[in-house]
Amino acid sequence: MIVLGSTGSIGVNTLNIARKFNLEVEVLVAGKNIKLLNEQIKEFNPKKVVIASSEDISNVNHNDVKAGETAILETIEESNSNIVVNALVGFLGLRPTLKAITCKKRVALANKESLVVAGKFIDQSNLVAIDSEHFGLWYLIQDKKIESLTITASGGSFRDYPLVKLKDVSVKEALNHPNWSMGNKITIDSATMTNKMFELLEAKWLFDTTNIDAIIETKSLIHAMVNFKDGSTTAHIANASMQLPISYALLGRVDENILQHIDLVKIGSLEFKQIEQERYPIWKLRKEILKNPDLGVVLNAANEVAVSKFLNNEIGFLDISKISIDAINKFNNPTINNIDDIFELDKEIRNYCGD
Amino acid sequence: MIVLGSTGSIGVNTLNIARKFNLEVEVLVAGKNIKLLNEQIKEFNPKKVVIASSEDISNVNHNDVKAGETAILETIEESNSNIVVNALVGFLGLRPTLKAITCKKRVALANKESLVVAGKFIDQSNLVAIDSEHFGLWYLIQDKKIESLTITASGGSFRDYPLVKLKDVSVKEALNHPNWSMGNKITIDSATMTNKMFELLEAKWLFDTTNIDAIIETKSLIHAMVNFKDGSTTAHIANASMQLPISYALLGRVDENILQHIDLVKIGSLEFKQIEQERYPIWKLRKEILKNPDLGVVLNAANEVAVSKFLNNEIGFLDISKISIDAINKFNNPTINNIDDIFELDKEIRNYCGD
Repeated sequence: MIVLGSTGSIGVNTLNIARKFNLEVEVLVAGKNIKLLNEQIKEFNPKKVVIASSEDISNVNHNDVKAGETAILETIEESNSNIVVNALVGFLGLRPTLKAITCKKRVALANKESLVVAGKFIDQSNLVAIDSEHFGLWYLIQDKKIESLTITASGGSFRDYPLVKLKDVSVKEALNHPNWSMGNKITIDSATMTNKMFELLEAKWLFDTTNIDAIIETKSLIHAMVNFKDGSTTAHIANASMQLPISYALLGRVDENILQHIDLVKIGSLEFKQIEQERYPIWKLRKEILKNPDLGVVLNAANEVAVSKFLNNEIGFLDISKISIDAINKFNNPTINNIDDIFELDKEIRNYCGD
Repeated sequence: MIVLGSTGSIGVNTLNIARKFNLEVEVLVAGKNIKLLNEQIKEFNPKKVVIASSEDISNVNHNDVKAGETAILETIEESNSNIVVNALVGFLGLRPTLKAITCKKRVALANKESLVVAGKFIDQSNLVAIDSEHFGLWYLIQDKKIESLTITASGGSFRDYPLVKLKDVSVKEALNHPNWSMGNKITIDSATMTNKMFELLEAKWLFDTTNIDAIIETKSLIHAMVNFKDGSTTAHIANASMQLPISYALLGRVDENILQHIDLVKIGSLEFKQIEQERYPIWKLRKEILKNPDLGVVLNAANEVAVSKFLNNEIGFLDISKISIDAINKFNNPTINNIDDIFELDKEIRNYCGD
């Protein structure tokens, strides 16, 4: 397999599964964590390595190292692997997804932005999503008449924080997610609820419905629910580890133990809450965005610029949602007829948002 | 269809479904509630009616009324219906189940005692259980490797009652079930946890596993869970109404709305507890009974005698479990090679327990 983003949390979990099931790793693609990359190279012995910046090439313990986006795309094209695990973060992941599909490889997609911005152009016949919620939905759906889908949100770092203090929170506080340890970008997206908005769009493309909503389940143990026409709801309950969705994405069916079962008696209780628009202002655009999923391109670009500014201490936490909402109001009816339109619009939005 | 026990809560719900889907009712079988039976006769116009006692025949507004167990069995044999809904209470339901199977009718089985006492002789190829928990399990099971099953219990009338006061509770208090309105027998069985023990045995026969346990979910909204080998758990969540399992039992597949969906945000939280042996002494026999399911005959007979005595104010609440446990210790290795052995042992236990 090819692992794009091998040193991030999805990448590390992917390699855990590769170790467990003895899967061959042909290519490792990583960013700045050269120390961990060198450990991975030592253990998994990939044929090729690609990193973000050419400055770091000399520090990588491998004799076939390249750098940059073009190198990633070329490596996908030249590889023999059937599976590409795309765990890149952000818009940057789109071209590799498209390339992998063109090369008829199976895409195990943790880069949700690929579907958020370009869902309508992505052939899913050989794609499987690595995302707890969508894995949960897929796991639950049987041949019964479905009425709607529900995914859960943790509520992020500021779920129980006083509303009036939100404007002054620090980057450090924002990165302190209650339930998961993930990369910086997704942790901030979780605190603003933008991540959940992305997941609704992702689900729209994966399950071909806009009848999908989210609620907060504070312990992140229930990941997704399917509401059937008959009045039943089924729920997928599992410990919060990406190893389960990754195993299914890589292996198809999994009959071996991957995670410990949840002990609900030990857990004691589960708590459910509404996603309040006061706390998560982006949530008021939910229906508009699901109705016009082309707005995914706008939301993604504006959000990437805003999150980057917040992480650089250039803007406050509440400004992230403000910038996204402002961009959606400005570009509220984008015309997207092909993939090139997406790249152009993405650039235009970034420019507008002061990237 | 034939409805055995038409005036009880399952019977009434069955007729609600018959009304909704315009299903024909050929035979009504009821006990003492002649007033309700007459209303049902007026609405559903059955060809035949059978009641418990011949004294009441003249009060039934129908020209073909019989009374007693033999009449029930003959009516099943002579009927044209393909479906027998068996909602009789207790051991009394066994012969009608056996007769319906012999007559190659589809059995929609709410009489769980049939499986509890005679599971190993019951051909399930044309049988479907009407029980929230087992419906939930059936609903959840897909083609994945199952590790174990979990059903839920409400905890019954005395779930939160001081342990030291249990010996003095009244019949009225025992009949005050927190979540459901059901018949007297099952409400008491729920308070002692004997009902859940019956359901474990029922599940053993239905799903061919002894790897099944129960926990308390205090709101009775999650009915059953399946724990898969991979570490996932799936849950069936629905409002506590028997109309859903009944619809599936009668119609096979249901794509229409039967119940309102659960609104988990409105519910707020779910709470899970262990089934404590101090509160539910019968629970300490769980492993022994699952290992030797022939003990179901002993437990059922002793419990029927004990519950009847409790309802007649002859014994205290804690004596119910004492009588069952004593009977299981006394008859702890019954020999059951055929159906006749069951009827003989049943008589012997009732005799021993002072029926």
